[in-house]
Amino acid sequence: MIPKRIIYSKGKLRILDQRYLPFKINYFLARNSKDTAKAIKEMVVRGAPLIGDTAALGYLLGIDEIILKGIKTNIKEILKKNLQILTNSRPTAVSLFKTTQRLHQKAIKLLEDGADINEIRKEIEKEAFKIIDEDIQSTLKIAENGVKLLSKDSKVITYCNTGSLATSGIGTALGIILEGYKKGKISHVYPCETRPYLQGARLTTWELMKNKIPYTLICDNTAGWLMKNTKIDAVIIGADRIALNGDTANKIGSYTLAIVAKKHNIPFYVAAPLETFDLSISKGEDIKIEERSSLEIIKIKETYIAHPKTNAYHPAFDITPHNLISAIITEKGIIKNPNQEKIKNFLKKILNLKNI
Amino acid sequence: MIPKRIIYSKGKLRILDQRYLPFKINYFLARNSKDTAKAIKEMVVRGAPLIGDTAALGYLLGIDEIILKGIKTNIKEILKKNLQILTNSRPTAVSLFKTTQRLHQKAIKLLEDGADINEIRKEIEKEAFKIIDEDIQSTLKIAENGVKLLSKDSKVITYCNTGSLATSGIGTALGIILEGYKKGKISHVYPCETRPYLQGARLTTWELMKNKIPYTLICDNTAGWLMKNTKIDAVIIGADRIALNGDTANKIGSYTLAIVAKKHNIPFYVAAPLETFDLSISKGEDIKIEERSSLEIIKIKETYIAHPKTNAYHPAFDITPHNLISAIITEKGIIKNPNQEKIKNFLKKILNLKNI
Repeated sequence: MIPKRIIYSKGKLRILDQRYLPFKINYFLARNSKDTAKAIKEMVVRGAPLIGDTAALGYLLGIDEIILKGIKTNIKEILKKNLQILTNSRPTAVSLFKTTQRLHQKAIKLLEDGADINEIRKEIEKEAFKIIDEDIQSTLKIAENGVKLLSKDSKVITYCNTGSLATSGIGTALGIILEGYKKGKISHVYPCETRPYLQGARLTTWELMKNKIPYTLICDNTAGWLMKNTKIDAVIIGADRIALNGDTANKIGSYTLAIVAKKHNIPFYVAAPLETFDLSISKGEDIKIEERSSLEIIKIKETYIAHPKTNAYHPAFDITPHNLISAIITEKGIIKNPNQEKIKNFLKKILNLKNI
Repeated sequence: MIPKRIIYSKGKLRILDQRYLPFKINYFLARNSKDTAKAIKEMVVRGAPLIGDTAALGYLLGIDEIILKGIKTNIKEILKKNLQILTNSRPTAVSLFKTTQRLHQKAIKLLEDGADINEIRKEIEKEAFKIIDEDIQSTLKIAENGVKLLSKDSKVITYCNTGSLATSGIGTALGIILEGYKKGKISHVYPCETRPYLQGARLTTWELMKNKIPYTLICDNTAGWLMKNTKIDAVIIGADRIALNGDTANKIGSYTLAIVAKKHNIPFYVAAPLETFDLSISKGEDIKIEERSSLEIIKIKETYIAHPKTNAYHPAFDITPHNLISAIITEKGIIKNPNQEKIKNFLKKILNLKNI
């Protein structure tokens, strides 16, 4: 089993340090919102839904800190600052914003209604764990829905890590693969190593091993050649943010993988909880793409893999346009050949909204 | 300047050990054909033309060994065995076969004509250095021809290493870039890191730095996203073997890069000396692709980047079909939109052949 990713007790959050996986099981201790933001920024924890869950607990830690320090004034300002600290940690994955804003709105309402800080804490704790539970439940539903798209003994390519290490549940894309394997729908998985952070090589292979699922790791640049020579039935990836027209921000390399899948007529599926949709963004071009340090490319652990003075460009994500996506798989159903109209109709129905 | 790659003196070949570059300048000492084959197999030396040159000197070392050991009998068998040892070192790059067979045929002819071993040595040494000189001259001509395809201030993507570290001259694809920069045709170069061996990250950036050419390293998976967001004028790569129809074996990842270039309407150029054509092979499917150890993927130097038991698939090359190639640039001219007919006509004219 994959170790617990986030362990909360009042005033303390232990976060499984994914930077050391699969080599070492280490926990990072966060005592407040700032520590949690640091853990998110430095990729102690990653994966859009798990970042959202962690940030929610980070927001709760902020309230714990107020109580433990006996702070009586400027509560609203402190909560707002904690929210900012958390949402400033990483720009692309939307869950982070959604979970923390959800808690913040609730906390402010309670505060304005005259609730004391202990009452607020209790309610925010309940809501934070509700968020985590929703994540767990949605991964199960995504898996159930995604498996329907697979035929018997499929061979699939996946990207980055979208499993237990990216969610509080069984995962998004990898959840479908795990569930698919149990049901005889998956015969072999090809995780791409996912440079530069190697989430595929370090984390996905580890999850696949632990689940005893046959797999073969490939370098990202090998996906095209594999598709040409092996019958690949689907590519399944996760998502960090989905625009209203279906354009999807995901780990850098997803776009290239989608182009190559299209060239070989292989279905390209995006698996993500509904909260990944950002209704305020109409198209991919408007999604902010995080640019990270070039050091993360030229140095692996303590080893330089290029001259230490090498210039490198490191966007952490890219955008796959909706016309390269065969279906978006959510916990509430599947949107095939997604576009703005289909997504609007789907969300209207699901969320019972009049207008989006 | 890039250090000398191969330094020969009778009975000794010092080969710049590219496995340690750019961190350490180390030479591997080969004293016979077997040592040379080992150096090629273990990637002390790499790059199709430079492998061909090194193997030629490795064949010469085999003759040196016969002389130094005072061997008088079975010369023909020993030479044949040395040829086999050298050609068995790596299967994909064709120069290795061509240069060694060229020397072997000459040696056998001399032997059969009654030449003594010292006379044979003298002739083979002359021929080996002729091969190296041809390599040097052809890189200059390839650069001269390739530059014609570039417009002012081009931004180009390149792959693997095709420079001084891959040839005895200025390089093939990188030779064009170097020459293009001098002539104001190149403004920026994006080398792909080229997993798993990182020839782009380790070697190409180093050559670009030494030549003071503006560059930015990218991960292989970033090429598509870069093409989408930056005006890239061309992709220029080298080749290990080209079939008669123009299908090109090159470093794994070239195929994916070609697909992505096509998607963005970016010209995709292959730069290679004529000897890269294998007239015995009509199409890419017939080129033997070397599969190397999975350890080369999951371990960088002494550092594991994935669980040590990870299964991985490591083809060292892939095939780019001719319809994804905008032009093949040789020392004798350019073949635009290559196909079997055009290549046959080109080679017939150049090589003055009646039939191919």
